[in-house]
Amino acid sequence: MERSIFGNISPLDHRYSLSEKGVFDALVPYLSEEASILMCVKAEAALVLAHLKDRGKLTAEIRAVLERAAGSVRPEEVYAEEEKTRHNIRALVNVLKTKVPLEIAPLVHLGATSVDILDTSFACRIKRAALEVVLPLLTKMENQLCAIAEREAETPQVGRTHGQHAVPITVGFAFAEYVARAGKSIARIRELAADLRGKLAGAVGAYNATGMLTRDPEQLELYFLDEMGLLPSEHSTQLVEPEHILRLLLEFNVCFGIIANLADDIRNLQRSEIGEAREGFSSTQVGSSTMPQKRNPWNSEHVKSLWKAFMPHVTTFFMDQISEHQRDLTNSASQRFVAEYITGFCMAAERMCAVLSSLSFDRENLLRNLGVNAPGTAGGSGGGIPGGILAEPAYILLAESGVSDAHEEIRKITLACERERVSFAAALIREKALFAKIAAQMLKLGIARTEAEAAAFFEHPEKYNGLAAKKARELARKYGNGELQNSGKFAKCI
Amino acid sequence: MERSIFGNISPLDHRYSLSEKGVFDALVPYLSEEASILMCVKAEAALVLAHLKDRGKLTAEIRAVLERAAGSVRPEEVYAEEEKTRHNIRALVNVLKTKVPLEIAPLVHLGATSVDILDTSFACRIKRAALEVVLPLLTKMENQLCAIAEREAETPQVGRTHGQHAVPITVGFAFAEYVARAGKSIARIRELAADLRGKLAGAVGAYNATGMLTRDPEQLELYFLDEMGLLPSEHSTQLVEPEHILRLLLEFNVCFGIIANLADDIRNLQRSEIGEAREGFSSTQVGSSTMPQKRNPWNSEHVKSLWKAFMPHVTTFFMDQISEHQRDLTNSASQRFVAEYITGFCMAAERMCAVLSSLSFDRENLLRNLGVNAPGTAGGSGGGIPGGILAEPAYILLAESGVSDAHEEIRKITLACERERVSFAAALIREKALFAKIAAQMLKLGIARTEAEAAAFFEHPEKYNGLAAKKARELARKYGNGELQNSGKFAKCI
Amino acid sequence: MERSIFGNISPLDHRYSLSEKGVFDALVPYLSEEASILMCVKAEAALVLAHLKDRGKLTAEIRAVLERAAGSVRPEEVYAEEEKTRHNIRALVNVLKTKVPLEIAPLVHLGATSVDILDTSFACRIKRAALEVVLPLLTKMENQLCAIAEREAETPQVGRTHGQHAVPITVGFAFAEYVARAGKSIARIRELAADLRGKLAGAVGAYNATGMLTRDPEQLELYFLDEMGLLPSEHSTQLVEPEHILRLLLEFNVCFGIIANLADDIRNLQRSEIGEAREGFSSTQVGSSTMPQKRNPWNSEHVKSLWKAFMPHVTTFFMDQISEHQRDLTNSASQRFVAEYITGFCMAAERMCAVLSSLSFDRENLLRNLGVNAPGTAGGSGGGIPGGILAEPAYILLAESGVSDAHEEIRKITLACERERVSFAAALIREKALFAKIAAQMLKLGIARTEAEAAAFFEHPEKYNGLAAKKARELARKYGNGELQNSGKFAKCI
Amino acid sequence: MERSIFGNISPLDHRYSLSEKGVFDALVPYLSEEASILMCVKAEAALVLAHLKDRGKLTAEIRAVLERAAGSVRPEEVYAEEEKTRHNIRALVNVLKTKVPLEIAPLVHLGATSVDILDTSFACRIKRAALEVVLPLLTKMENQLCAIAEREAETPQVGRTHGQHAVPITVGFAFAEYVARAGKSIARIRELAADLRGKLAGAVGAYNATGMLTRDPEQLELYFLDEMGLLPSEHSTQLVEPEHILRLLLEFNVCFGIIANLADDIRNLQRSEIGEAREGFSSTQVGSSTMPQKRNPWNSEHVKSLWKAFMPHVTTFFMDQISEHQRDLTNSASQRFVAEYITGFCMAAERMCAVLSSLSFDRENLLRNLGVNAPGTAGGSGGGIPGGILAEPAYILLAESGVSDAHEEIRKITLACERERVSFAAALIREKALFAKIAAQMLKLGIARTEAEAAAFFEHPEKYNGLAAKKARELARKYGNGELQNSGKFAKCI
Repeated sequence: MERSIFGNISPLDHRYSLSEKGVFDALVPYLSEEASILMCVKAEAALVLAHLKDRGKLTAEIRAVLERAAGSVRPEEVYAEEEKTRHNIRALVNVLKTKVPLEIAPLVHLGATSVDILDTSFACRIKRAALEVVLPLLTKMENQLCAIAEREAETPQVGRTHGQHAVPITVGFAFAEYVARAGKSIARIRELAADLRGKLAGAVGAYNATGMLTRDPEQLELYFLDEMGLLPSEHSTQLVEPEHILRLLLEFNVCFGIIANLADDIRNLQRSEIGEAREGFSSTQVGSSTMPQKRNPWNSEHVKSLWKAFMPHVTTFFMDQISEHQRDLTNSASQRFVAEYITGFCMAAERMCAVLSSLSFDRENLLRNLGVNAPGTAGGSGGGIPGGILAEPAYILLAESGVSDAHEEIRKITLACERERVSFAAALIREKALFAKIAAQMLKLGIARTEAEAAAFFEHPEKYNGLAAKKARELARKYGNGELQNSGKFAKCI
Repeated sequence: MERSIFGNISPLDHRYSLSEKGVFDALVPYLSEEASILMCVKAEAALVLAHLKDRGKLTAEIRAVLERAAGSVRPEEVYAEEEKTRHNIRALVNVLKTKVPLEIAPLVHLGATSVDILDTSFACRIKRAALEVVLPLLTKMENQLCAIAEREAETPQVGRTHGQHAVPITVGFAFAEYVARAGKSIARIRELAADLRGKLAGAVGAYNATGMLTRDPEQLELYFLDEMGLLPSEHSTQLVEPEHILRLLLEFNVCFGIIANLADDIRNLQRSEIGEAREGFSSTQVGSSTMPQKRNPWNSEHVKSLWKAFMPHVTTFFMDQISEHQRDLTNSASQRFVAEYITGFCMAAERMCAVLSSLSFDRENLLRNLGVNAPGTAGGSGGGIPGGILAEPAYILLAESGVSDAHEEIRKITLACERERVSFAAALIREKALFAKIAAQMLKLGIARTEAEAAAFFEHPEKYNGLAAKKARELARKYGNGELQNSGKFAKCI
Repeated sequence: MERSIFGNISPLDHRYSLSEKGVFDALVPYLSEEASILMCVKAEAALVLAHLKDRGKLTAEIRAVLERAAGSVRPEEVYAEEEKTRHNIRALVNVLKTKVPLEIAPLVHLGATSVDILDTSFACRIKRAALEVVLPLLTKMENQLCAIAEREAETPQVGRTHGQHAVPITVGFAFAEYVARAGKSIARIRELAADLRGKLAGAVGAYNATGMLTRDPEQLELYFLDEMGLLPSEHSTQLVEPEHILRLLLEFNVCFGIIANLADDIRNLQRSEIGEAREGFSSTQVGSSTMPQKRNPWNSEHVKSLWKAFMPHVTTFFMDQISEHQRDLTNSASQRFVAEYITGFCMAAERMCAVLSSLSFDRENLLRNLGVNAPGTAGGSGGGIPGGILAEPAYILLAESGVSDAHEEIRKITLACERERVSFAAALIREKALFAKIAAQMLKLGIARTEAEAAAFFEHPEKYNGLAAKKARELARKYGNGELQNSGKFAKCI
Repeated sequence: MERSIFGNISPLDHRYSLSEKGVFDALVPYLSEEASILMCVKAEAALVLAHLKDRGKLTAEIRAVLERAAGSVRPEEVYAEEEKTRHNIRALVNVLKTKVPLEIAPLVHLGATSVDILDTSFACRIKRAALEVVLPLLTKMENQLCAIAEREAETPQVGRTHGQHAVPITVGFAFAEYVARAGKSIARIRELAADLRGKLAGAVGAYNATGMLTRDPEQLELYFLDEMGLLPSEHSTQLVEPEHILRLLLEFNVCFGIIANLADDIRNLQRSEIGEAREGFSSTQVGSSTMPQKRNPWNSEHVKSLWKAFMPHVTTFFMDQISEHQRDLTNSASQRFVAEYITGFCMAAERMCAVLSSLSFDRENLLRNLGVNAPGTAGGSGGGIPGGILAEPAYILLAESGVSDAHEEIRKITLACERERVSFAAALIREKALFAKIAAQMLKLGIARTEAEAAAFFEHPEKYNGLAAKKARELARKYGNGELQNSGKFAKCI
């Protein structure tokens, strides 16, 4: 059943399946309808294998036969059969039975309820998508962030709070924020993906039917789930406990929020008046159909937009946590859209990787916004006074030296700067007695080795950046040294 | 660019495009990517026509030429061109220019910003989808509801509050609730769809560019929008005022909630212990893979599940209301998913139509739950006393006749019922003096014409249903008489 | 029962009840628990009056007695009684009965179910809060917006899309956006508030009990609701149709989004690098505890933050739309929080009024960002070329004059500007032949009356603002001329 | 500043502060405005202590003096001072400075930015509320659940899927679901609460100011946070990394969903037609004002309603994750409402404890719904055939014995049951040859020791419950043995 992709409704299946082709193609083996059907077939085969093992009759030969049979099922057949049964798993079972040797056919689906197959194969698909697509993608992004944090560890930038200039940081330090936040989220995603669960506990979770088939139905369940690379739900109703997958989806959304925050920062740094960063722009690209000078931060905007589209899905996730008694079916349609959520999240991460890989910084504007070597901007980092941003450390050092009205002394100096149009450094240093105290304090702390160095400090507001560079490098090294790479422990699932 | 539908990610584009094929096919001409591109082409053509009209040069011949040209654009060409431009509207403009006569080419996109085209064609697509698919579908559902309300206007049913038996209603009355609620929502959807807006106000909404092209750029905008069947946004930034489409989407969601409520009611009426209603069930359908007796309310559950999947999208709609200054692009991806929302909503409505068309009621169980002619159920409508549900009206009538301790008198009778295992009617009527007062009150009100009729009332708890039947019929007639049919006023848009 | 406000949990009841004291005090008479109880008492009294009227026994004297009785009920008494009954309305009824004359007591609550009283009084409180607090507040804000739009109709500002400089607008035009959007929302709120509904239809909505008390229970309901200033729900279950209040809350949230958008715009205009607007700042106010130069846009941030806190409540509103059968009680707690939602919304509106009343604009920065009379900013409106922003109209005018490679001709001029460091105007005008064509086109359109005026246009980028000033004034006049004032039609409700 | 609680807006501060007085009073010391101010004072004191320690000057005496000073600050003073400063932390600092010895005053707030104090004290309050109120409350609930699971481990109940009777479970097994789900959530909450973080990294997180005060500002931060019982944020902007608190709030909401699911189950078991469970009901309580027989599941409904009111707050939590650059203030108001969220959650948990402590089960209805010893209900567990629910195991056992058309053989027997009105057991056992095969299979599995026992099995549908009782006991023992009790590790914070 072919269709032009332009005849699809979901942007994921038309526009974004092209613009983010790599991600789309990587996810299809886990999240498409074909994947869903084939993983259920695999689970049905696993159930037969489990029965055989439980009865001591499992041979490599039978396993091979069964895998061949399972491998030959096509989605189209299952759908054709479902036209009759109006029940998707019964349809799949009917199809599979025609493909296996006669003596094995009675074991197909034996003792299982549909949801044993569905919930188990769903967990398996999500686990594999997480381990084989989501985590490698996030690790790529994390490594890019680490590279920027390291490379720009010393690049001066004004720190901003409330959109107002505050005190200096470095570009690397600003990106190290995302190194640390995403790094922890990646680690948590790995834990949660590894903890997804399956079940073979029957219609209401009490092993009623399998209890008629074997002395130890919990062991049968373990055989089954072992084939699928999963552990059993501690308690099942008809469903696996919903919190395993819920927590993973929530952590995806935590990570999504981190990426959206980064996107917001990057797009704001590209405002015309700020101009500190720039997304890459291909040579044939059109900025505006009428305004050729424009270069819009549209990739960062796109990432934020995907977050707005998908973040609210958590409300669905929380509503799907509730199922009446041993289960109602009101999660049937809604749970299918988890595939969309994960795809949207991955597409945002991939686009962020594209932004990061081509992101450049404008040193000139970075310094201008810091009030260095350039006329001040609107508000100005230092209230319009060149270097005025350093009034804060001057006040702190002076206070520490024991001057009780330090704040007032420094305020007077800034007034002089405005009146006489001199820089803060010049006005400060000429107050010899006062400056001596400040310099002494700096020597004591090791910030300067000589009074001249102390004076130089005040001519370079960008140097008042605390541990910015140190933190940037530490975090880049902690999270960038490969500890986040896919550990490859996962193997069993398919 | 063909793809197997089983290789799609969105359930809308694989599973539900088959199970709800009619709705899917009806929406594709408005909500698919192809529809999106072709409507933009139509808008670009409308702009050329508007320029020609403004210059007094529009002829039927040129119009025909232009429509042919526009009609020949294929999505694939536009996508190929976008590979180069990285700008979707510029790509489309480039393609269209190659298809129109040379003398017209300079008018293509002249004076427009991309969003003039995009927002206008988006409004036009949503308007048409609403008028040509959503409203006819909802009207079909409304008429089904009216038919049930009318047909079952007298069918007795116990009213339930807190899941507890309260006092009687009728099945028709219960469905009339949805007649009234959905009826008003449909009317509001029609108003809001008709009020969607377009724009030709340029990059920041101030008609800067078109002000260089014509003396009255607002008139040029009217010419353009008239071609598209839309009115202009009262104030534009780069965007049309977002509230027009927002309010329509919110009303869709209001209607979605009404349908979800109905689905919940229908699925609860199908509980094993209640058994008052039943969804249709085809003869080859499988209830459970192991429990053949089961017939699950899965269609009602599906409708509720779609609501859980799509209702939270309103959070996105509200976030997309906010755009910085003359616009940011953070609504670009998220707004594309409006197509999914509308499709999900329509699929739920269509499934509800299917449920309603095959819904049957079990008279026996309806009466049994009312405590008529059958041993009481668990709690029992009348606390286990046959007809005990009528203690309420007996008390009210007695109190009205002037007996001050009416409540206590009636309570004593119910105690006697329990003790002697007689029905409430029998116990009441044998209290001659007391019953005479009650009967007199009933004659006064016209509820009974004779004392015998009064006595009969107490033997039929199902008759204590107030205006239930009357309201059911009134509402069915008000909303079912065609006043909701598509008025056909909309014609221009494409 | 007194408590220190600092011992409250909700910020609305401690911090914001002080910072937004006016709004808090205005809402308490409608939204506090005391208001809730007293309005139920009023509804119970209205029911007695309705019964009396239905029986032709209503006199001014009885009315006065009843109002006095109702007026004497205190919340504390009702709570004390509820300790026993564990049922709030039964408690209230018990209390009221002790206060009315003995002959009237039997009419108290007669024929009503608790929700007749609760839903009706809830509708009445919300209606009054909307008409007497919310709408006057929003009208005040609307008038402030109109005043700014009018006053700053000509004040030049660069239009921004994607955070990038686009083409010019005016400050008044930017504010006119909110005039138009909020204006329509206010009108809709008025309509919806007027359409809230009550009921007296009994336990399941079918008038079972009142049908035993009067021949025309719908007429009795009208008498009751007329006392409360409300119309009846078209169909009731135990509840009024939920959509009346839902739509009003949704429109509140639409308006909240408009205000949040405005807040975002205002806070971005206050960024250090932009500096076009500034919130008022009292003389004793502290910006930062260590950075005295900082003046943060904290009021705009506060408005946005309230939106983030309250916008998601719409999810609750949509979930509360669903009630099983004739009602379940799962909206009991959640609906009480509607009071918080309305309060949060009003506090945001009030804070926005405070921002608007003290908002000032920095003409110098406005012009600098437009690239007028000042060195360009980072990206620059015209790509770093003084007046370069006018390349767009030059190109359009030249193209319109019939020059086929107009775009290329203008691009060459901009290259010359960069090379020779001259302004765009200078470089354009010296191209005599070419400029003559442009000027002729401008004369034709009436943009300039002479070639000198045409030349002057290119020296003033800020004048390329289309209909910005005209639209600003038109909208300010449309929405500011009192048409939005409270029409005073509402009188009955208390 | 006293106010009648009935003059408050939030239901938390009026109605629920009385109905859930225990929880309210327990949370006030952490979540009220007074708590907020006093914890900031404590943090300011901790900062002074940290400076002294860093300088080697901390003595027990100074510590005592400081604690006395901090302990004397009153919220009213701080608010009065904030009237002037319009900055809450500056106000608090001003007040505290007047209370400490002159020589210590310069150390107050030295080197800190307001958010160092605010974020740290916020984390400390949430941590303490979690450890000292939330976790003990949840542990109480968990122990109640364990008790029910253990006590009712063998109590037969029909399992339900889609609201339809499926196969048997036990009441204890149904509650063990919540034992397992809540148990894991409680453990996770403990982990996350222990991992909340504070900071002393200054205005932009780079230790700019403290770097002027000490050689090792990260050590100074550790001293400070050690006083507060917290670890430092790995990277700070002006804010602590937001994910620590976000994950805790999300896990609260996971647990809230589990409780809401339980509430839904309990209220559905109380439906008139089901009648398997009943909430306690005090002797003076009124069910309905007009229908005295009614006993509504209003406590369970209340719990679900609180979930509907508070679950959507997660959208706010996710929006607050995003802050521009080194921080914007758009989380200021919204974050304050976290106090409401936690209170709402605790009130729901407390109400659930009340429901569980008085919950009773109706054995008669439990058996009737299973189709044991009673005429079948509407749909009937076994399709109306007494014991018909056991058709499933009969079919499975027969198939396992090698009969290829087992399903058809059993179906024929059920048809005979309907025709002849005999029980399934009777009809099965009289088919001697066939039953012999089934019995043999049961002997093989150890389900029966003799053919008579096998026959008895089919007369007791309630015994077909798999591992229900075993799982119920196992989980009750695992989670109920005190391992969930507060480990008491937390001591430092205040």
